[in-house]
Amino acid sequence: MKRLSDLLERIIQRVNINLREPLFDVGPYIRNLIPLPQLTKFYAFYGITPHHPLNFHFSRSNLAGSYFLGKCHVSDAILYKSDIRGDELKRKGDIFQFEGFDIPLHEDETIRIKDSFLIKTLVHNNSHDPENLEDFIIKNTVSTHYANIHGSDVEGCYLGPFSTVDLTTLHDCVIGEFAYLQVGELAHHQVPAGTIWISGGDQFEFRYQHDPENLKKYIRFEPGSSPQGFFIDFVESRKDDFRRVFDVVNLETPSSIPSGASLNRYAVIKPKTQIGQNVLVAQRAYIENSWMGNGANAQENCYIINSRLTGNNVTAHGAKIIGAELGEKVFVGFNSFLQGNKSAALSIGENSIVMPHTIIDLTEPVNIPASHLVWGFIRNRKDVKENTMLLSEFTSMSGQFVRGRMNFQGSGEPFVKGFQHRIEHILEANGAYFNGMDKKGHAQSSRNISYNLIQPYPEGDLKGLYPTIDIQL
Amino acid sequence: MKRLSDLLERIIQRVNINLREPLFDVGPYIRNLIPLPQLTKFYAFYGITPHHPLNFHFSRSNLAGSYFLGKCHVSDAILYKSDIRGDELKRKGDIFQFEGFDIPLHEDETIRIKDSFLIKTLVHNNSHDPENLEDFIIKNTVSTHYANIHGSDVEGCYLGPFSTVDLTTLHDCVIGEFAYLQVGELAHHQVPAGTIWISGGDQFEFRYQHDPENLKKYIRFEPGSSPQGFFIDFVESRKDDFRRVFDVVNLETPSSIPSGASLNRYAVIKPKTQIGQNVLVAQRAYIENSWMGNGANAQENCYIINSRLTGNNVTAHGAKIIGAELGEKVFVGFNSFLQGNKSAALSIGENSIVMPHTIIDLTEPVNIPASHLVWGFIRNRKDVKENTMLLSEFTSMSGQFVRGRMNFQGSGEPFVKGFQHRIEHILEANGAYFNGMDKKGHAQSSRNISYNLIQPYPEGDLKGLYPTIDIQL
Repeated sequence: MKRLSDLLERIIQRVNINLREPLFDVGPYIRNLIPLPQLTKFYAFYGITPHHPLNFHFSRSNLAGSYFLGKCHVSDAILYKSDIRGDELKRKGDIFQFEGFDIPLHEDETIRIKDSFLIKTLVHNNSHDPENLEDFIIKNTVSTHYANIHGSDVEGCYLGPFSTVDLTTLHDCVIGEFAYLQVGELAHHQVPAGTIWISGGDQFEFRYQHDPENLKKYIRFEPGSSPQGFFIDFVESRKDDFRRVFDVVNLETPSSIPSGASLNRYAVIKPKTQIGQNVLVAQRAYIENSWMGNGANAQENCYIINSRLTGNNVTAHGAKIIGAELGEKVFVGFNSFLQGNKSAALSIGENSIVMPHTIIDLTEPVNIPASHLVWGFIRNRKDVKENTMLLSEFTSMSGQFVRGRMNFQGSGEPFVKGFQHRIEHILEANGAYFNGMDKKGHAQSSRNISYNLIQPYPEGDLKGLYPTIDIQL
Repeated sequence: MKRLSDLLERIIQRVNINLREPLFDVGPYIRNLIPLPQLTKFYAFYGITPHHPLNFHFSRSNLAGSYFLGKCHVSDAILYKSDIRGDELKRKGDIFQFEGFDIPLHEDETIRIKDSFLIKTLVHNNSHDPENLEDFIIKNTVSTHYANIHGSDVEGCYLGPFSTVDLTTLHDCVIGEFAYLQVGELAHHQVPAGTIWISGGDQFEFRYQHDPENLKKYIRFEPGSSPQGFFIDFVESRKDDFRRVFDVVNLETPSSIPSGASLNRYAVIKPKTQIGQNVLVAQRAYIENSWMGNGANAQENCYIINSRLTGNNVTAHGAKIIGAELGEKVFVGFNSFLQGNKSAALSIGENSIVMPHTIIDLTEPVNIPASHLVWGFIRNRKDVKENTMLLSEFTSMSGQFVRGRMNFQGSGEPFVKGFQHRIEHILEANGAYFNGMDKKGHAQSSRNISYNLIQPYPEGDLKGLYPTIDIQL
């Protein structure tokens, strides 16, 4: 295993060189985080279909438990149980529009991961960096448990557990636990844990700061130990359910799945779950005793338990919905945590938008009416007032607005419209509107995937490293 | 699946062009032999370890259920449940000795399969063709159920079920069911079913011809239908036992395996089987209620049932041993079928050599004494006299010798010595003589293999074809 431990040290060194200005040492965070023998235990896998682009290159890397789709190149990297989905990359001939420029792509875009260590990280969408259209680059970067790298070039960064970088080019930054960033471009910054920061250039800026003491109950990460807190306990306690789906080569799809819907065979579907038309359930999603209405989707690492999603609901990567009733087209953003229970039921009315990294953890019944924006931290009806607003009211805002730990500046209209536009795009891309002929999306093109299982060298110096693998049409 | 059916037709055409002189049409034999949907059902797999060379290239091919080890290139071919083992190939720098020439290899040898259709065929060893040292070529060839291509370049040939081509370069030949060939080189020949033909150049020639009517009970193959007969019934009735080992990704090795021994995780080991030191059990071997003494080996597609193998026994590819007691170092050749039972026990004394493609199917108890050569067809004690001979007696023969359906010409000594030398080599290569430090062989280097599972496109025009895959160190 010598080569694998050399590789880990090399990655630490490379990331630390990038992070010399915030003077941040990733070594203590990751050196013993995943014991090296653990990296030799799990197969990696990739999917092929005629509907997805295909190009994989793996060299001098460990890929334990990771999943690949589309176009992904990985070299000199350690990927542990990560999902690298290159199925939404830009294609040759596409025109990328940016601030008045119409930039044609001269080749297909590829996710390129180099000198990086990603743990349980989701990489998805396409690079929104206008400077690197053909390459979605992740380099000299450490990303920890359940982070999302979404359409974001990331170089020389550290991403804490449950953090998300969304449509943002990131250089030499340290992103704290459960922070969410969508700011276009950022360099040489340290973003505190629990910051939700969305910037629309000159038009608006949204900031919310989770109470650090409160956040620690949900997620904390000290160098030298594993991430701790309720979020970690929650996912760890459901780990065994995933074991079975990974142990068997070909798992039968339940025959009761409606046409147009797709359940990934690496998802966990537990009893009393109802699947509607055009529903998409991605790999590593977990659904138990829940109703998935027509067009609802459940993305990677999400959990939906004892809940009813009326239809056309988006459950973004890593979101958790427990004991909740969500109206038509309710959106739940990245890594949000929504938990009601029998004595404290949660309902959210149609068309509401639950912002990424929102925590709703109820002590009494709560009903959020239709068409509301929801953010922050909600335990009871009093918190609802401080952490929600009617979308139409938010749209009409202008100037500065502070409520509790939220601070908004600029114009509400492009902020809300941007969200609504994106939700429509997600539903379309996922195939929620498929009519049997047209408007195909991921739910339809992912119904039938061939999975391929690859493993590292089982012993010797190379133990834990994968051979060089190239796959194409 | 259009591309796959085009590929099948292309292969038929290519083979038929080669076989225009025997005027043999392979089309009717193979066109409906494996229904195309069957070819999309099974994953192919390859092994990696630090002890084996590594280089795989697959393109424009179907590989359903096939296994690869070492260096194997496959293009424009259909391989169905075949075993392509490139772990005994020659290496760069090796010196190949042939008739006084010392020929150095300037690169590693690779098995190259092109425009061919192999069904349940084993390809193993290295090419013994002095004209093509770096390439072990299988081209424009159709090979059917349980055929063995062993160290033999094969171009433009048809191999019938349970046939074996051993250390022989074959051009434009048709090899009948259950025929065994080891003749150095052969072109434009039709070899009848049940012929066993071994030629040692000017030194000797051994021929045995199974009675065609009798052979039909065991194996027959008519164009347009599947192979039939007792051999087929025998393997088909044990097919279900293999299903489980292919359904699970990682199968635990029983902890009771002695150090130095290896059981392939794609073998079937049924209860009351005892495994000794340095035992090698290859993939797709089947062992039930049997004693495998120290250094015994069970090669691909072999079956060992209700039997006792004392030690250092070679059970060659496809051999079947049922209800038998075999003394120390008894060798059972390719595809031989040995069947005793409670009321008709079979025992064979130490150092005896059961020639390839021998059938022993007892109606009364039979004891073959030590150090005998065994061939042909044996049902009872009377047949033993006609189909065996003391090795020392055979060694001393010279000239022509006819016994029953066997015809030997030349000198017995190089014939017997050649066999004995080869058996020693096989035991050495398989690691039977490993002493804990030195004399490692396959049993030791195959203890710990990483398996990688690859699948074809699941739908569309490309359904059943595998993408282009390149794998190297």
